[in-house]
Amino acid sequence: MKDLTFDKSRVINFSDAVFSIAMTLLVLEVGIPSIKAISSNSTWVILQNRIPSFIGLVVSFLVTALYWVSHLRSMKYVTTVDAKLLWLNIFLLLFIVLMPFSTGFYVTGFNLVGPFVFYCFNLSAIGLFNFLLIRYIMKKEKSNPELTPHIKRWYLHTALNALIIWILAGVLAFILPSVARLIFILIFVIQFFINRNYKKSNKT
Amino acid sequence: MKDLTFDKSRVINFSDAVFSIAMTLLVLEVGIPSIKAISSNSTWVILQNRIPSFIGLVVSFLVTALYWVSHLRSMKYVTTVDAKLLWLNIFLLLFIVLMPFSTGFYVTGFNLVGPFVFYCFNLSAIGLFNFLLIRYIMKKEKSNPELTPHIKRWYLHTALNALIIWILAGVLAFILPSVARLIFILIFVIQFFINRNYKKSNKT
Amino acid sequence: MKDLTFDKSRVINFSDAVFSIAMTLLVLEVGIPSIKAISSNSTWVILQNRIPSFIGLVVSFLVTALYWVSHLRSMKYVTTVDAKLLWLNIFLLLFIVLMPFSTGFYVTGFNLVGPFVFYCFNLSAIGLFNFLLIRYIMKKEKSNPELTPHIKRWYLHTALNALIIWILAGVLAFILPSVARLIFILIFVIQFFINRNYKKSNKT
Amino acid sequence: MKDLTFDKSRVINFSDAVFSIAMTLLVLEVGIPSIKAISSNSTWVILQNRIPSFIGLVVSFLVTALYWVSHLRSMKYVTTVDAKLLWLNIFLLLFIVLMPFSTGFYVTGFNLVGPFVFYCFNLSAIGLFNFLLIRYIMKKEKSNPELTPHIKRWYLHTALNALIIWILAGVLAFILPSVARLIFILIFVIQFFINRNYKKSNKT
Repeated sequence: MKDLTFDKSRVINFSDAVFSIAMTLLVLEVGIPSIKAISSNSTWVILQNRIPSFIGLVVSFLVTALYWVSHLRSMKYVTTVDAKLLWLNIFLLLFIVLMPFSTGFYVTGFNLVGPFVFYCFNLSAIGLFNFLLIRYIMKKEKSNPELTPHIKRWYLHTALNALIIWILAGVLAFILPSVARLIFILIFVIQFFINRNYKKSNKT
Repeated sequence: MKDLTFDKSRVINFSDAVFSIAMTLLVLEVGIPSIKAISSNSTWVILQNRIPSFIGLVVSFLVTALYWVSHLRSMKYVTTVDAKLLWLNIFLLLFIVLMPFSTGFYVTGFNLVGPFVFYCFNLSAIGLFNFLLIRYIMKKEKSNPELTPHIKRWYLHTALNALIIWILAGVLAFILPSVARLIFILIFVIQFFINRNYKKSNKT
Repeated sequence: MKDLTFDKSRVINFSDAVFSIAMTLLVLEVGIPSIKAISSNSTWVILQNRIPSFIGLVVSFLVTALYWVSHLRSMKYVTTVDAKLLWLNIFLLLFIVLMPFSTGFYVTGFNLVGPFVFYCFNLSAIGLFNFLLIRYIMKKEKSNPELTPHIKRWYLHTALNALIIWILAGVLAFILPSVARLIFILIFVIQFFINRNYKKSNKT
Repeated sequence: MKDLTFDKSRVINFSDAVFSIAMTLLVLEVGIPSIKAISSNSTWVILQNRIPSFIGLVVSFLVTALYWVSHLRSMKYVTTVDAKLLWLNIFLLLFIVLMPFSTGFYVTGFNLVGPFVFYCFNLSAIGLFNFLLIRYIMKKEKSNPELTPHIKRWYLHTALNALIIWILAGVLAFILPSVARLIFILIFVIQFFINRNYKKSNKT
């Protein structure tokens, strides 16, 4: 059964479903206040207590969306889904599914190092399988003329960028906690240079 | 990567999934009574206590459905999905995902101003991204002959209608709370005039 | 905008998503026992306490599946989705979404009349919109040669069968509670005669 | 209505949706620690307490994914979906939906026999309907030239393998509990021989 291939459209539909459900379940982490809490606190106080929850919801939603967009970008080059691609994708989805827990843990212990490190671990694991998936697609579809060395490099550097920064954030959390929480901004700065470099080398 | 476009059918499937999950999660806000509550209260009392929850479920379900129908209407003109359209859509979905929380908050503090204002804020945010999405589609697909100035105006006015009324409801809640809760009926009245005006100008 | 039609495949995908989510959320109603409950009770006792929950899960899952199969059967005749069909479908889905609450309520008050009546009400409401949807499709697609008077009658009688029996179950619950809980078996008996009658009239 | 067939793509979409939702809901079983627990315990202790939950999440996710892959493999031979196939599939999905409960139960009573047996029961039930579905597809599509006796045997042996091992695990749990928990490794060993035998007989 080695030459077996799978129905690409089902694999994609299934992945989209897991992404969308995990992203929607994030809202359950923002606890609905009890009647008692509402009647003894102003709305303002209730919302202020939930600022970490809202930050967690927005950051996790957008970061997961970024990985979904990456999935959207890389899967379009896929001609056939073999067993390796299928299982790399399933492991990627396993860590997407973990996001509602990691976000809830991170948000509940918002000022502590441990939960933030676990959150970075989850994002690194997604980043790792995202990278492995893209590397495998690039190798598998190398005969596709659209996949020039420039484009391949852009894909791999973009995937490595997110992976390395989240690992770095997790490590830095032990030494420079406040820097660690903002270092993800570097993803966008580095991406800017990856894109500029790509355009330059594309012209020549 | 500026000229990159995305798989329209996946973007649509993903959006439909987020809409459907958020709309189904609304039911979790209607708390299932405990055995103790059931044995010491009549079914009638239990259901009466849940009237705000049922109102919240029905209103949020139908209002979200309205935005989904709007998505259904506007996306059919889209030929290619570029990065801007993709991210406007992702932000729209972020506020769709917030609906189960806003509904639960609004319903728990049913008679208070604050939770209702937060609910209006959520609906306004959906309305805003719905409006921005439609405006961008109208601009992007302007070469489509089906998109006559009349139709474009109908789309933009319809989107603005919902957006403005929900902002108004949120503001009025501080001054005239009971009016604020019924003002959403104006959406249907104004829509009636938008439709009539559209048909008139279509004849000439 | 009266002549507007909607993307049938999106409407169907969205409906399938709502059905599948509501059916999967039913499992949340079967509460996971606490560590304390597990260590002080045998597995047998824990499972016995959950018999109403398991009955509720299985019955609701299968009954909702029956309505989904009905949706599968009737939507294949639909050529275009107009606004009326769209909104009949959205109201059908609203009551599908209510099922996890109704099931949880019914199961928690398993021996009481009230929660069972509410459960019957929910199933009757689904049955009503299922009937209205099918009746509208039969009328709208009357030019389809496949829709012979015999087939139309079969569809309408099948839809009416479920609707009437669930209303009957809800009413009987006040008078003959134990009969009311078993009367749903009549659905299958009556369906047997509807099918036999259909085959007979088909031959002549 | 005996010759009725159903829309295959809808049945597949619906199945994919149920699989993906059940697999994502597994994360809800990993309880988010309370603020109190986080402030009085180190992250390490909190994560250690959740080791059974993580094992449960990963095992259930991957085992359910295996059944999904099996669904992917067998459904591609299906030309038309008749009522029997449809209902075998619905019963398969019913037991997929039960997985978040079984996993939560198993994980909460991680060292006890009862919850593990229930977990094995659930996996056996999935295995049974998976086997019945595959056997029915093999019989129904026997005219397909791709379905050689070798391939059919491979499918049926693969399905029987998982089914028998999970039943065995459930029975052994009463006698040799520690062996029972590791016996699922046999699935992969036996699969290795099934595959080798398939390749051998394919050559001759």
